[in-house]
Amino acid sequence: MGRIDDRLAELGLELPRPFAAPPGVEFKFLPVRIQGNLGWVSGHGPMDGDRPLVRGKVGAEISPDRACQAAAETALSIIASLNERFRSLDSVTKWLKATVFVNCAPGFSGMPAVANGFSALVNDVWGEDNGVHARSAIGVAELPFDWPVEIEAVIKYV
Amino acid sequence: MGRIDDRLAELGLELPRPFAAPPGVEFKFLPVRIQGNLGWVSGHGPMDGDRPLVRGKVGAEISPDRACQAAAETALSIIASLNERFRSLDSVTKWLKATVFVNCAPGFSGMPAVANGFSALVNDVWGEDNGVHARSAIGVAELPFDWPVEIEAVIKYV
Amino acid sequence: MGRIDDRLAELGLELPRPFAAPPGVEFKFLPVRIQGNLGWVSGHGPMDGDRPLVRGKVGAEISPDRACQAAAETALSIIASLNERFRSLDSVTKWLKATVFVNCAPGFSGMPAVANGFSALVNDVWGEDNGVHARSAIGVAELPFDWPVEIEAVIKYV
Repeated sequence: MGRIDDRLAELGLELPRPFAAPPGVEFKFLPVRIQGNLGWVSGHGPMDGDRPLVRGKVGAEISPDRACQAAAETALSIIASLNERFRSLDSVTKWLKATVFVNCAPGFSGMPAVANGFSALVNDVWGEDNGVHARSAIGVAELPFDWPVEIEAVIKYV
Repeated sequence: MGRIDDRLAELGLELPRPFAAPPGVEFKFLPVRIQGNLGWVSGHGPMDGDRPLVRGKVGAEISPDRACQAAAETALSIIASLNERFRSLDSVTKWLKATVFVNCAPGFSGMPAVANGFSALVNDVWGEDNGVHARSAIGVAELPFDWPVEIEAVIKYV
Repeated sequence: MGRIDDRLAELGLELPRPFAAPPGVEFKFLPVRIQGNLGWVSGHGPMDGDRPLVRGKVGAEISPDRACQAAAETALSIIASLNERFRSLDSVTKWLKATVFVNCAPGFSGMPAVANGFSALVNDVWGEDNGVHARSAIGVAELPFDWPVEIEAVIKYV
């Protein structure tokens, strides 16, 4: 057990099963691609393995609070993918950038508060210095699997 | 002729003319910008030079299959830009990340299958180890030139 | 005063106050995150400190010309953030990539001309060789604070 594993346990956070294609869908990409000391994390949603945990548009059937929780669930799905890719989550030393795509109902512009669900969790687990990142939050028309949020990231690893 | 040129020929793939601004539009950016051993590829669409090959919203006037083909056409436009930027396509050694923006009609959420048109072509040409990449697929409200898809990428070069 | 400061003055450009969260919003991210010699710049809008300079959808209440100006205002907000992050703007040696998200009214597809407002300013201030970048321009459904544009970037620094 590494330092990040310990911190997840301390916070009572459990990782979902690693992100996989739902039935009938083929994924022709990697969850994480690494080069040099940078890692690009594919767009993830609030998934437990191949099962979406929540669906719908934020500002309509999904409340801002539920969307914020979905962003935290997406963080956990991303961490599960990083856990699969690296021998230890301690290899992920720094979060650099996150892009948070929010599946918005017309007129919803509260993306920053939604995206904070992701950022707060990463900051809590990795600590402020290593976890804090640059971020963009965007309102999009549709997302795969009717996810309320999709998040991609760039990380540093050793 | 390099290894990648040979592979394109073997697959019967021809590169379109390099991406250029359609009449009346000015492009104040580069198709590819390099630094260190990374290259950032601008958002491309299904273009032959300055001419869009297909237009419209996926899930409405453009079928998912036609959109998947548009994603492959966009891959070829990107490869044509890389061919212009580098002396040889063999200089592009690894694909790292692709972001696939799909111009979605309301309710369309089949972006992963659309994006596979891009990923499958790149994997075929560069081979699984070098071609495979992290990826995000997003449904957007509108795209330049009414493209059904727009794709940007990060690559490694030597 | 550095070379870039001089150039801003020569062009009559004044930096706005650094990007900050408007009242009632919390920002759990950094405006700029650096690693190695790369810097990731968070999504910025046309802001003077915590105050949006313009709001609305491009192609409806916001004209393409006003949106182009908003993209230039966003460039200045980004430069103000870089000025805060580095001791001198001369530390930012090269612009690599910009992603320009345009808050589009239905049917508006003139994102490239809007995005040129950003690219032209950066090219003018840093000079063509250092300022020119790869770019994607996308039409999105909604943006935070009803911004007409949101722009993120990757830069090289020394």
